[in-house]
Amino acid sequence: MKEISIGLIGFGTIGSSVVKVLQQSRNILEARAGLPLRVGRIADLDIESDRAVAVDRSILTTDAKEVLEDPSISIVVELIGGSEPAGSYVLEAFRRGKPVVTANKALLAERGAEIFRAAYEAGVEIGFEGAVAGGIPILRSLREGLVANRFEKVLAILNGTCNFMLTAMDQNTGVSFEDVLRQAQDLGYAEADPTLDIEGIDTAHKLVLILCLTHGIRVPADEIHVEGISGISPFDVEMAKEFSYKIKLLAIIIRHGEQVEVRVNPTMIPVSHPLARVDGVFNGIYLKGDMAGDQLFYGRGAGGEPTASAVVGDIVEIARNIVHGHPGRVPPLGYPEDGIRNTGVMSMDAISTNYYLRVQALDRPGVLSRISGIMAEQRISIHSVIQKGRHLSGTVPVVFLTHTAKEADIQEAIKRIAALDVVEGPPVIMRIEDDNLE
Amino acid sequence: MKEISIGLIGFGTIGSSVVKVLQQSRNILEARAGLPLRVGRIADLDIESDRAVAVDRSILTTDAKEVLEDPSISIVVELIGGSEPAGSYVLEAFRRGKPVVTANKALLAERGAEIFRAAYEAGVEIGFEGAVAGGIPILRSLREGLVANRFEKVLAILNGTCNFMLTAMDQNTGVSFEDVLRQAQDLGYAEADPTLDIEGIDTAHKLVLILCLTHGIRVPADEIHVEGISGISPFDVEMAKEFSYKIKLLAIIIRHGEQVEVRVNPTMIPVSHPLARVDGVFNGIYLKGDMAGDQLFYGRGAGGEPTASAVVGDIVEIARNIVHGHPGRVPPLGYPEDGIRNTGVMSMDAISTNYYLRVQALDRPGVLSRISGIMAEQRISIHSVIQKGRHLSGTVPVVFLTHTAKEADIQEAIKRIAALDVVEGPPVIMRIEDDNLE
Repeated sequence: MKEISIGLIGFGTIGSSVVKVLQQSRNILEARAGLPLRVGRIADLDIESDRAVAVDRSILTTDAKEVLEDPSISIVVELIGGSEPAGSYVLEAFRRGKPVVTANKALLAERGAEIFRAAYEAGVEIGFEGAVAGGIPILRSLREGLVANRFEKVLAILNGTCNFMLTAMDQNTGVSFEDVLRQAQDLGYAEADPTLDIEGIDTAHKLVLILCLTHGIRVPADEIHVEGISGISPFDVEMAKEFSYKIKLLAIIIRHGEQVEVRVNPTMIPVSHPLARVDGVFNGIYLKGDMAGDQLFYGRGAGGEPTASAVVGDIVEIARNIVHGHPGRVPPLGYPEDGIRNTGVMSMDAISTNYYLRVQALDRPGVLSRISGIMAEQRISIHSVIQKGRHLSGTVPVVFLTHTAKEADIQEAIKRIAALDVVEGPPVIMRIEDDNLE
Repeated sequence: MKEISIGLIGFGTIGSSVVKVLQQSRNILEARAGLPLRVGRIADLDIESDRAVAVDRSILTTDAKEVLEDPSISIVVELIGGSEPAGSYVLEAFRRGKPVVTANKALLAERGAEIFRAAYEAGVEIGFEGAVAGGIPILRSLREGLVANRFEKVLAILNGTCNFMLTAMDQNTGVSFEDVLRQAQDLGYAEADPTLDIEGIDTAHKLVLILCLTHGIRVPADEIHVEGISGISPFDVEMAKEFSYKIKLLAIIIRHGEQVEVRVNPTMIPVSHPLARVDGVFNGIYLKGDMAGDQLFYGRGAGGEPTASAVVGDIVEIARNIVHGHPGRVPPLGYPEDGIRNTGVMSMDAISTNYYLRVQALDRPGVLSRISGIMAEQRISIHSVIQKGRHLSGTVPVVFLTHTAKEADIQEAIKRIAALDVVEGPPVIMRIEDDNLE
């Protein structure tokens, strides 16, 4: 073999950036991989539009099969996203013995069991660093550098769109969720249909992959408790400030012995927490290992170039293995495929944490006593209460921070509080991660 | 082979932590490495004192040779530090075809050319993640995950002792360098002889390794411009605050085409810079890649357990390569040994940056004009001036921030200013990293 020929399926923003870096850093990458890396073929439905890079038109095709079936292609890079046809292309590459690099978190989260098993059985590699946190080499760090650690806690900001929006709400007092969503859409940070991002689904996809790497547990994304940010009001943001918190959409993994607490939800964290400074479109992964202690990885979680940085990192790793004749040295999820379990995630009811609870209640004597009475009956201990404003008629928001309470108790309390005739609308809860709040 | 037998040379804090994690995570590490990892032999001058871990006394020896010559030992872990005898042990391990894991930055910085060349020629691996930034997997990230990037800028806090001291000076107005040094010594963060830390030498050792990994350039530590923190006064800390800066001891690498600017010096950075929040004994590495953009890695840079986390990560990596029969897949410095150059570091005179300049001058008409006149003649443009306090007799400090100026011009200006009869003592300069200050 004189060179490593790469076949690209998908020639959009990330694909163009991958080609660009392979071209402009040709010499360094050759030195590092051990052989020249060449883009041999590119498939995309659109092969007419101009891209930011110049490529020989003869390598372009509208038919992905031409990439998969080309015997000279050693590595297939899948960048079209979504479950199908991406999944079929990846599986076909494996069948043909070709390793795959992908940034497709939806595919790996939804069909991970099938895809990783197929790679394992075919004895080929799959690189997917670009699927989580863009250019931050977090997956490789979990799989290799931090392999000595049991991970006590992982808190991660993994969706730049949501983080941009929450940062905007934090920095512009009173601005509504709808306004920042429109702003994010105008800037190209949010899709026309933003559901995947704002409802936390994209974050859950990434969480599924991190959970595999940190704990050897693989569960489908739809078995994870997921809450998005669309219910967050300017008032909650203001209250968070009052308590010296910031609201971030977090992917959370907390170890309890052999079990793990896993969820995605908007979370209040102290302004002094390292993640509180991860603002705008940036991503951040905070983790606590039993050996390494606290760590934070911070960087750009999306965009063509950061993702291409991760994709090319994977290409070089696989190329090194091809040059040295040994693929599969490190299992893609850090654990051998047969060592991955599909159990161990605690039911949401069983978790305990601190809560922010907002109740819209009539401003009338005895109301606070009735609400806090229910909380006491549900074994929920109140850390602080704030009742803001005073309307002579109508309702006012009452906000509680709780000591550690059980989710099941909180849910029961909410139901009972919502049923009170002095309360308007369902109470709002938000979970808190604050080591100083017991 | 039924297991990987590890030989430890050095059984202090880090060594004990390595043994502890190998014991307590035996099953996970076996699953991840592919074979059981066993500590086969441990050499230390002191084999009597109790350690935090229990080991079979029969594996203890006071003679490092017994580790090196034991044919059952597959990986040698060197944790005694210093240049000798550590260097001889490492070279002897290579001669015997044994890969080495070390956390010895002094050895690798001072004798890197010899050590890495010997590993290369023997065809064995050397792992040294623990030598830089403790438990943060920064070297592996530079070598693998971020391999697609040209690194435009690296700014790094790599010495926890200095960072603890600078944080203490920042948080306690007026406290002197001597006081915080004593405090650091009392807490065990600083050695009785703190020179290596506070004079920036330890930081320079780590910089040498990072420079190899980011730019393929290897120069001896003593060819790098190094300034420590012992000259920093409470007044400078106060002035930094006045300008919304923090003072951090930074390892700095800035790319200028094929040349790099490389130095270690106390640096003023804006309080909004990600590194400004890296406080206390923590380390942080900020880097800007042309593809990945801005990244920050944050974590514990020293201590038994964080360093052991890195050491065991290296052990598992090497074990995986032994199991799969392929060492040397990734060159230890990211570039092939023959691709590393020993040129490309700019002379200090040729760099340009922003400066903080403090002059102790007589409080008398015309003095400011004479000082700023010299600066103008040296082509140094002043961004701002502060003259603090007013003593009717005696001298006052006058502080300048400059626009971008050449180091050579600043040095010449200092000399001329120091020679003025209205100036007391040599002027103090500190370099600034602030993208908003042109």
